[in-house]
Amino acid sequence: MKLFATLVLAAAAFGIATPASAQFAKPEDAVKYRQSALFVMSQHFGRIGAMANGRAPYDAKAAVENAEVVAEMSKLPWAGFVANTEGLSQKAKAEIWKEQAKFKEHNEKLMGDTGRLLAAAKTNNLDNVKAAFSQTAASCKACHDNFRNQ
Amino acid sequence: MKLFATLVLAAAAFGIATPASAQFAKPEDAVKYRQSALFVMSQHFGRIGAMANGRAPYDAKAAVENAEVVAEMSKLPWAGFVANTEGLSQKAKAEIWKEQAKFKEHNEKLMGDTGRLLAAAKTNNLDNVKAAFSQTAASCKACHDNFRNQ
Repeated sequence: MKLFATLVLAAAAFGIATPASAQFAKPEDAVKYRQSALFVMSQHFGRIGAMANGRAPYDAKAAVENAEVVAEMSKLPWAGFVANTEGLSQKAKAEIWKEQAKFKEHNEKLMGDTGRLLAAAKTNNLDNVKAAFSQTAASCKACHDNFRNQ
Repeated sequence: MKLFATLVLAAAAFGIATPASAQFAKPEDAVKYRQSALFVMSQHFGRIGAMANGRAPYDAKAAVENAEVVAEMSKLPWAGFVANTEGLSQKAKAEIWKEQAKFKEHNEKLMGDTGRLLAAAKTNNLDNVKAAFSQTAASCKACHDNFRNQ
């Protein structure tokens, strides 16, 4: 409970201002937050990829469940890319902060794609899932190519 | 894209079987997954706590948004507590695997509480949020006391 209480207190102490940076008790939490959200998303996205690429049997229900998590998770990481975290992660390129409008555009593109992936999964049609998966994966790649060190 | 491709391939390679453990490419991923999901949840829960405890102004819209994430995230971590991860994290007590029914009961209690927290947030009434936050925090604590090393 100690860590939990600390988190609540810390969040409270920084929760009064509205900027996104103020939502995190310390810059390291913002980095951990965005990495955590991206990791959870990648796990569920990978399960859809396995079906889309024919390496796992197509399970329409599982595809929808995973796509729901991917769509929800895709909204979260961006709040963690706050200004005071520049340089804290070796993977995050300085371009994230230098080209904020472009970065935001990529984030929004992904959110749109994951919404379409969920819609595709709900059609219960593997070809639709394949197409939407491919589109979403291309968005992941485009953002990584521009804004993430390999 | 390399890591991403590896993840997809790895998820695919292990995605054919249905047990939860097979959803992760390696046991360490299951640990990282559950820790990531719990961390994301804790960040959003802490923001509601700040409002519930009067250390941040009550923002009804933000409370709902945070409660939505908490409710969604509370469903995820449990899939990461697979058998082949016992001993990989110093925080996870052996009781998780020895008392699986009890652990599951705690997980479900939390999911119920976060659903009620979201419902409370949607009433736009701070007293309701306070009561539901307190109830949910008690669930966190009960599970930590029983199943997590401090």
